[in-house]
Amino acid sequence: MPTTRTEFETAFQPLVEDMLQLCRDNKLPDNARAWYEKNLLHNTMGGKYNRGMSVIDTSSILLNKSITPGTPEYLRAGALGWMIELLQAFFLVSDDIMDSSKTRRGSPCWYLMPTVGMIAINDAFMLEGTIYMLLKKHFRQEKCYTDLLELFHEVTFQTELGQQCDLLTAPEDHVDLDNFSLDKYFFIVRYKTAFYSFYLPVALALHYCGVATEKNLQQANDILIPMGEYFQVQDDYLDAFADPEVLGKIGTDIQDNKCSWLVNQALKRATPEQRQVLDQNYGRKDAVKEKAVRKIYADLKLEAVYHAYEEETVSMLRKRIADVDESEGLKKEVFEAFLGKIYKRTK
Amino acid sequence: MPTTRTEFETAFQPLVEDMLQLCRDNKLPDNARAWYEKNLLHNTMGGKYNRGMSVIDTSSILLNKSITPGTPEYLRAGALGWMIELLQAFFLVSDDIMDSSKTRRGSPCWYLMPTVGMIAINDAFMLEGTIYMLLKKHFRQEKCYTDLLELFHEVTFQTELGQQCDLLTAPEDHVDLDNFSLDKYFFIVRYKTAFYSFYLPVALALHYCGVATEKNLQQANDILIPMGEYFQVQDDYLDAFADPEVLGKIGTDIQDNKCSWLVNQALKRATPEQRQVLDQNYGRKDAVKEKAVRKIYADLKLEAVYHAYEEETVSMLRKRIADVDESEGLKKEVFEAFLGKIYKRTK
Repeated sequence: MPTTRTEFETAFQPLVEDMLQLCRDNKLPDNARAWYEKNLLHNTMGGKYNRGMSVIDTSSILLNKSITPGTPEYLRAGALGWMIELLQAFFLVSDDIMDSSKTRRGSPCWYLMPTVGMIAINDAFMLEGTIYMLLKKHFRQEKCYTDLLELFHEVTFQTELGQQCDLLTAPEDHVDLDNFSLDKYFFIVRYKTAFYSFYLPVALALHYCGVATEKNLQQANDILIPMGEYFQVQDDYLDAFADPEVLGKIGTDIQDNKCSWLVNQALKRATPEQRQVLDQNYGRKDAVKEKAVRKIYADLKLEAVYHAYEEETVSMLRKRIADVDESEGLKKEVFEAFLGKIYKRTK
Repeated sequence: MPTTRTEFETAFQPLVEDMLQLCRDNKLPDNARAWYEKNLLHNTMGGKYNRGMSVIDTSSILLNKSITPGTPEYLRAGALGWMIELLQAFFLVSDDIMDSSKTRRGSPCWYLMPTVGMIAINDAFMLEGTIYMLLKKHFRQEKCYTDLLELFHEVTFQTELGQQCDLLTAPEDHVDLDNFSLDKYFFIVRYKTAFYSFYLPVALALHYCGVATEKNLQQANDILIPMGEYFQVQDDYLDAFADPEVLGKIGTDIQDNKCSWLVNQALKRATPEQRQVLDQNYGRKDAVKEKAVRKIYADLKLEAVYHAYEEETVSMLRKRIADVDESEGLKKEVFEAFLGKIYKRTK
C-alpha cells in the first residue's frame, strides 16, 4: 500500500523541531526563529508530495516490505523524501519571483505575502540550506553520507542549469521563436525537471536501502530521465488539449511564450506561412492570437503527433523496464509504479 | 610575502575552465554556457579578494614556507580561496537585490545589468553551486572532503541566518528602533559576516594543511569571531566618523536605517529626550535628520566609546593570541597577520 499524504506530513514535524532546536542552539532571536518556521511550513506543506512520498514507496518495493508510519524506518525514509520537498520549495519560491507568478497552491506566492517581499530570496536559500543541516543530523554516520551530499549538489546544479537555459530561451517579455528547438526543449526538461523529480527520489531510495550500486543508479537514470521527459511532454500536451474542468486550470503556455513541446513540434512542421502566423501570435497576452496558434496546432494534427510520441515512448520505457537487471537489488516494479501513475493521465 | 591580487586572479582561470568543461560535458546550449561564464567572471572578479587570498597566506604561515604562484600547491589553496569568493559573490548578488542596491564595485549591480533582471537569482544559486562542483573535482580524494562540504554548508547556513535576522531587524522602509539591541547587533555581525569572512578562510587553510584538529578549529573560532565583530564595529564607526576622502565613500548607515553599532550604543545611553530625537530622525532619507542623529552621537561621545571598545577588544584578542596552543600545528602568527591588517584601519 502506498503511503498517504497525511502519514507523510506527520514525518515532517520532528524535522521542523530539529531545525527550531538548531535555531535555539544558535541563539537566533525569537522573531527570526518564528519567521523561519513560517517559511518552512508555508512553502513545503500543501503540495501533492509525489516526489517525497515516492522515496518511501520505492524503498518499500526495494525492501519488499511495508514501511510502517511512525517507525524510525519511516521517519528516515520520510526525512529523505522531505529533503526533496525542501529542494522543490527552494526552487518554487525563487521561480515564482523570477517568473513574476501571482499564486501558488491557491495562496499568494510567498514573495507576495505581507511583509515578505525580497526577503523571500534569503528564505529560499534557507530552505535549501535546511537539507544539509538535516542530512548532517540524520545521515552523518551512514556510509552513504558523502554520496547523499554529492547527489543533492549534483541534482541542484543540474536543475539550476535547466532553469537558466529556460529563462534565456523563453523570456516572457521577448518572443523569438528562433530561440526554440527540440534539442533545447529536451535539455531544459531533463535538467530542470527530470533529474530532481524522477531520478532523485529513486536514487535516494537506492541509497536508503543500501543498493545504490553504480549499475543500479545508471539503470534508474536510463529509465527515469526519459520518463521525466515523457511526463513533461504530457504536461505540455494537457496544457493545450485537456479539458480545463478535469485539468483544474486553464492552460497559459501559448500566451506565456513557453518553450513547450507543442510549439517546438509546430515549428518543425510549419510551412513558411504557418511559421509567420506563429511568429506573430505566439507569446502574446491576447486570446485571439492564442486562438490563431491553436488553429496551427490543429492543422498540424499535433494531437495525433502526441499520441504517436506517447505510444512510442511508453513502448521504449516498457522495454527498458523489462530489461532491468535485478541482480544488484533493483526491482522492475519501482519503474512500473512510476509509469502506472503517469501513463494516459488526464491531469 | 603575502600573495598579490594578480597572482590570485591567475588561479581562477583553470577553475573557470573546469566549469566550462562541465557545461560542455552536460551539453548545455552555447548561449547558456556563455551566460554562465559571464556570471562567474562579472560577479567574482574585481574585488579586494581579502578572504580568498588569506587562505593562501594562512597556509603559507601554517606550512612555514612560501607557496609559489603557478604551482599545484598554489592552485589548490587558491581554489579554496576562490570558493570563498564564490560564496561571497552568491551573497552579494542576492543581497543587492534584497537591498535594492544600485552599484557594486563601481558598476551597476548584476541584477540591474541589461537583460539580467531576476535571472540574477538563479545566477546567484549557480555561483553557490559552483563551489560544490569544484570541491568534488579537486578535493574528492582528500580525507577532509566531507569536512570541507560540511564547513561550507554550515557557514552558508549561518550567513543566511544572519542575513535573515538583519532583514527582519532593519527593514529599509520601516523604522522601529525598539527592534534594535546590542544582542541582536552582535548576532547579526557574527552570523552574517564573521563566520564566512574570518573563520572560514582560516578553517579552510587548516584543512588544506592537514591540521584541522578540533582544538585548532576551536581556537581559530574563539579568536576570529570576536575579531570579525571588531572589524564590523570599525566599519560602522568609520561609516559615521571617517574622512569620506580617505574612506572612499560617504557613509549612509543613518539614512539607511542600519542596525549599526553606533545607533545601538546611542540607544543604550540616550536620555528620553535624546531617544525621541533618534526615533524621529533615524532611518530617513533626509540630510537634516541625519545631522540631528549625528549630533546625538557627538553629545553621547560615541567616538570615545568606540576607542575604549577598540582598545579593550584588541587587548583581549592579543591575550587570546598569546595564549594560542601551537602544539597541534596552529600558529599565533596567523592571527597576528589578520589583526595587523585591521587594527586602527582608516578605510
